[in-house]
Amino acid sequence: MRVGVLGIGKTPHKIQHNKSLRDLIVDAGRLAMDDAGIAPTDVQAFYLGNAGCTGFAFENSVALMGADHLGLTPAPAMRVEAACGTGAWALHLGVVAILSGLYDTVMVMGAEKMNDLATVEGTSIIAQAADSKEEYFSGLTFPSGVALTMRKYMQVYGCTEEDLANVSVKNHHYGARNPYAHLRFECTVEDVMRSAKVADPLKLYEVCPMTDAGSALILCREEILRDQPDREQVYITATSMGSGTWYAASDTLDDAYDLLHTPAQKAYAMAGLTPKDMDVAEIYNSFAIQEPLGIESLGFAKQGDGWKGAKDGSTWIDGKVGVNLSGGLLCKGHPLGATGTSQAVDVVEQLRGTAPKDIQRKNVSNGISACRGGPGAVAAIHIYQRLEG
Amino acid sequence: MRVGVLGIGKTPHKIQHNKSLRDLIVDAGRLAMDDAGIAPTDVQAFYLGNAGCTGFAFENSVALMGADHLGLTPAPAMRVEAACGTGAWALHLGVVAILSGLYDTVMVMGAEKMNDLATVEGTSIIAQAADSKEEYFSGLTFPSGVALTMRKYMQVYGCTEEDLANVSVKNHHYGARNPYAHLRFECTVEDVMRSAKVADPLKLYEVCPMTDAGSALILCREEILRDQPDREQVYITATSMGSGTWYAASDTLDDAYDLLHTPAQKAYAMAGLTPKDMDVAEIYNSFAIQEPLGIESLGFAKQGDGWKGAKDGSTWIDGKVGVNLSGGLLCKGHPLGATGTSQAVDVVEQLRGTAPKDIQRKNVSNGISACRGGPGAVAAIHIYQRLEG
Repeated sequence: MRVGVLGIGKTPHKIQHNKSLRDLIVDAGRLAMDDAGIAPTDVQAFYLGNAGCTGFAFENSVALMGADHLGLTPAPAMRVEAACGTGAWALHLGVVAILSGLYDTVMVMGAEKMNDLATVEGTSIIAQAADSKEEYFSGLTFPSGVALTMRKYMQVYGCTEEDLANVSVKNHHYGARNPYAHLRFECTVEDVMRSAKVADPLKLYEVCPMTDAGSALILCREEILRDQPDREQVYITATSMGSGTWYAASDTLDDAYDLLHTPAQKAYAMAGLTPKDMDVAEIYNSFAIQEPLGIESLGFAKQGDGWKGAKDGSTWIDGKVGVNLSGGLLCKGHPLGATGTSQAVDVVEQLRGTAPKDIQRKNVSNGISACRGGPGAVAAIHIYQRLEG
Repeated sequence: MRVGVLGIGKTPHKIQHNKSLRDLIVDAGRLAMDDAGIAPTDVQAFYLGNAGCTGFAFENSVALMGADHLGLTPAPAMRVEAACGTGAWALHLGVVAILSGLYDTVMVMGAEKMNDLATVEGTSIIAQAADSKEEYFSGLTFPSGVALTMRKYMQVYGCTEEDLANVSVKNHHYGARNPYAHLRFECTVEDVMRSAKVADPLKLYEVCPMTDAGSALILCREEILRDQPDREQVYITATSMGSGTWYAASDTLDDAYDLLHTPAQKAYAMAGLTPKDMDVAEIYNSFAIQEPLGIESLGFAKQGDGWKGAKDGSTWIDGKVGVNLSGGLLCKGHPLGATGTSQAVDVVEQLRGTAPKDIQRKNVSNGISACRGGPGAVAAIHIYQRLEG
């Protein structure tokens, strides 16, 4: 399969009190259409990933609002919600729409406005992406659940908190160099270790911020992009979705591994590529521990070794595979529904060679994005290739 | 295009204090899988339409929860939200997924639990499906917006409130005969006229109730159903989505007409059929006036004449086309996200000949469902055909 990436766009990732959700949707959509060189009337369908509009902004159906304000009517619009896999699902739906033959050109977008409420209200909204009836009210929130995973990881695989702190060091190294990132400062292992405990052993520098952002892609039939040889020839060549357990309490390390591993295997087969072929990877890390887990699931390291690359350099910009050169969710931020699309935009920029200069890897031909969400309930893999001539 | 309808299932439509949203999802899914003769592991993707879970039940990401409780993992799951077009979008996504070639068998579902809150809280949640920033806080709610449309319709087309009351009479005639309907009583024109004013000229019997329900379909590649000749050979042969204006204040009668007319024209072309070929139609009528508008958009009457069929019998069970033989949203109820899928299930039952006996039309070959949502912001048309041998 090949689906063309005709255009990309993203807003800055930060706290944006001067932008409403509608503004973010309109900004991201216009940027992507401008980049694609198309008009709103060329968009045949609009897939918007947004996870928390009802809670964050007392509005629902924001895809319909966005379609109207972007001038997309009479193209159909919908909102997809699947916890933190929301944006990646929007991307998947767009790819599937093109493959179906019913649509030639579509817009996929993620947008989230998280910072209009007090943080405690925001975290309550986020908690709705896990089991609100049993686990949440028992105190098993996302941070506490992930802290359990982190402790299991250290115990089973025999690494230390300091070892894992290198993941944050790497992400901050690149986040500091990404103008679109929310947190733009470097840190050391000592800084990570000294940062506030969120849920022991999880520390503040191992947790993503709450971010306002929008990001969008214009996807098209392969031939449409192929017929414009002056444009960067970047295609999505695999899309694969999966699911795991809804309950954090029953999530094992093997479950966490399988969640992304199963769809990744399918995606590699779909693209006819292997982990060794990947130059860059954007891997979901709303909490730092999820990066080594993802690295293992994607086949870049064996189970238990995923943390080593951040320490030995093999997941840095000149390593075997550049992982989260954007700064990852830890620094770029995690605008829930916009995260999956933001990962896609960042990988496409790497393939085009248009990433911010200090985080642009050389000679990037193939990239992969891995998104997940819920306790361990949704997984999404996309593979991107630059295919010349 | 042909996509097989392998199975259908629906829960009763009523106030269900003894069922949670999770229960409704599990019940509808099991019914559909049982009907299809498949196991949860046969389902490759799960598309859940739900509009208001965050508000109604303080939970989000209910597709992921539902997938886990239905045993669908590792199949991917997502929630779609597009105002009252939510369930129809789930159906569209399922059809598109099959057409893409990436999936062989998928589950589409709509489910909504609306009655855990006080009615005033519920209406506030529903209002989020329109513009919450400008129109809602200015008093332009759904009932008041639709009342404006109803008044315009009477003024422009020269019909009376009594004329339009026949729409409710027809719906209640069939709703009283549908064991799955929420409101099961007949009424006369006088009853409608005497019912409480909701927003002049809109009266209580012209407004749908708030309903708890779930409904689901198992869709499959054409060959899968074709290879099971003992099963009812019902296929979806057209799917067409559209959008209109987000703002009720700027919605004209022509806008209301175009909203469903444009995608209906595309759907007829896709199926190679005309309005004359349709035996049954399920047409969105959360408010009675939307039924004549839909009848016109679908080509069953010219603009301004859509109300006449309920009076002269041509949209009754033995008329030219049986419209809302289920009782429509007015009687069946309008469980937001479940409405689009419920319409589909009801049309499929008519084609199979398995509708409740008093509302089963004879010799049904072709049917159509028309869903809409938001002020005038989303439209969905699906055509269904019984294709023997």
